[in-house]
Amino acid sequence: MKAAVLRDGALHVEQLPDLTPGPGQVLVEPIACGICGSDLHTVDHAHDMVETAIASGSPGAFGSLDLAQGFVMGHEFSCRILATGAGVEGIQEGAEFAAMPFLETPEGRVVTGYSNTYPGGYSEQVLVSPLALLPIPNGLDPAVAALSEPMAVGLQAVNQSRITRDGIALVAGAGPVGLAIIAALRVMGVEAIIASDFSPTRRAVAARMGASKVINPAREDLIDGWREAGDGTVPPVLFDAVGVPGMIDGLMQIAPEHSQVVVAGVCMPPDSFRPSFGIYKRLNIQFVLGWTPEEFAASLHNLAEGRIDGSTLITGEVGLDDVPQAFTDLAEPENHVKVLVRPNLG
Amino acid sequence: MKAAVLRDGALHVEQLPDLTPGPGQVLVEPIACGICGSDLHTVDHAHDMVETAIASGSPGAFGSLDLAQGFVMGHEFSCRILATGAGVEGIQEGAEFAAMPFLETPEGRVVTGYSNTYPGGYSEQVLVSPLALLPIPNGLDPAVAALSEPMAVGLQAVNQSRITRDGIALVAGAGPVGLAIIAALRVMGVEAIIASDFSPTRRAVAARMGASKVINPAREDLIDGWREAGDGTVPPVLFDAVGVPGMIDGLMQIAPEHSQVVVAGVCMPPDSFRPSFGIYKRLNIQFVLGWTPEEFAASLHNLAEGRIDGSTLITGEVGLDDVPQAFTDLAEPENHVKVLVRPNLG
Repeated sequence: MKAAVLRDGALHVEQLPDLTPGPGQVLVEPIACGICGSDLHTVDHAHDMVETAIASGSPGAFGSLDLAQGFVMGHEFSCRILATGAGVEGIQEGAEFAAMPFLETPEGRVVTGYSNTYPGGYSEQVLVSPLALLPIPNGLDPAVAALSEPMAVGLQAVNQSRITRDGIALVAGAGPVGLAIIAALRVMGVEAIIASDFSPTRRAVAARMGASKVINPAREDLIDGWREAGDGTVPPVLFDAVGVPGMIDGLMQIAPEHSQVVVAGVCMPPDSFRPSFGIYKRLNIQFVLGWTPEEFAASLHNLAEGRIDGSTLITGEVGLDDVPQAFTDLAEPENHVKVLVRPNLG
Repeated sequence: MKAAVLRDGALHVEQLPDLTPGPGQVLVEPIACGICGSDLHTVDHAHDMVETAIASGSPGAFGSLDLAQGFVMGHEFSCRILATGAGVEGIQEGAEFAAMPFLETPEGRVVTGYSNTYPGGYSEQVLVSPLALLPIPNGLDPAVAALSEPMAVGLQAVNQSRITRDGIALVAGAGPVGLAIIAALRVMGVEAIIASDFSPTRRAVAARMGASKVINPAREDLIDGWREAGDGTVPPVLFDAVGVPGMIDGLMQIAPEHSQVVVAGVCMPPDSFRPSFGIYKRLNIQFVLGWTPEEFAASLHNLAEGRIDGSTLITGEVGLDDVPQAFTDLAEPENHVKVLVRPNLG
């Protein structure tokens, strides 16, 4: 089978041995697999990420990776069943599902896309667990169903925040994470959603996803959006969906007293900040990552029932051979929001 | 009147003009005024603190100070009534009170101890508002009543945290703020309170204030206290009561998944941290400062009714003439917990 392997800081399209489902496992072909911003980070900063994961004391999947050996990323995918292992019942060959990226193995649970042994979705074949498969409801395009995972990331950020329906949300960054946050806020019924991004394309998508106001941070101040949206008595929730050094400090600086900063952008390098901003203004900072199975399922249904227009987010599709080029293209965000890898396109 | 004036980064004991209470104001003599750790910071870092307060967008009392002009610090005090201004009723000359450090003036509310115009408690005379005065209950020593303010700081930190009675608290630093946190946790009924400090004196006081275990961070790991106190399923709340650069990052590094770091120590310089620790482990960081009037009153009653043994914390008393030397001595924390300034001692 063909796959895009990350090894030594670069992606290589290679032939790997075909996979065989073990007992309780399901062999699938990805229909579509989204390229995640964290995968872009991983290409450039994999060594730092592994080191920091180990230093955090919660190494998780990342801290266990052998980078020299290489691995196949891809954790945002929908799929078609190719075969089932012993003991798997009720899952038909050819059926299509949205897949949560995990696999139960004799060695424990594997996070798909972060394993040296089990390839992720940038591949013609993937192994998943039956419990990871969700039927695609309401005739949703299976390619759009691949957005369930990034949409769930946004939903988790909103669920872990203090935002209420009549609150004011400030979303810094309208890449896939920021857009997923905007979408989840909109589904929740939040009306005041002010989003900022340097890219006019992304600002336009943010408005289509439900932002009540979009801002170019080169010319306007995100916090002015909060001042205009209310009477200043309710502190906003500020979402960091950028994840670059200085972003957390910048949001802490503009945050009014008693507000919350939700850090959903993944900033991997060490960063600097001024704790006194937090102290003077009694700020709360909530870091978020991932989602619960309930949030994943809710996001799939939000897409299937039209509460989130997923097709708006898909700005490109590539075959496996073009994955390395797609990663290069995504370094310039103006042109893209979400690119889907379609392994069956070649 | 005599007062200790902070000007040009040094304390000067000087004669200032006597004060006269305006309408709705009360003139008092401080019985005792605690030296706060933040006052020690202020002597060394006043310019940074003013700049950061302004940069935070919430300048508050600090951001309005004219450092060249000088001011009298001191915001933890009990007092005896000297005279009342027009319109003040029911407050008798000679009566003793715990005082919240604020004063209503024609120019707005002043935070006592952070004003160029109205001196704080390191002085023979102070102006306060009638609403700032709380009767000292239950025969409590008025000098101990001066601890209401720092105890309220600890109570606020606990109230703003996620801790529950059956939770596990890790308190880094057993100076006045850490000890106040330990005391508030104990009053709340929290049983697992693990405290760390390099100073054996402070560790001993921490144990007397209610810490269930004390740790020397040079030899033991605070997080081991959490491992020993429970089964690892309930994330701890980690209190930063140290306030030096690197402390927040250090607590984020040892924090287990889903735990909360409460930042009660005042770290004024810019700091560095690794956001990835927060992300990997979905941490929450709550910055705290100050207290509510309800928390101040509750702390006074905790002292008066013996739920907190305030006298344990008082390790020294000085007259106004010795305030500069006391600040020097407190730079070496081994010898002291809380030093009270007694303006009537000379």
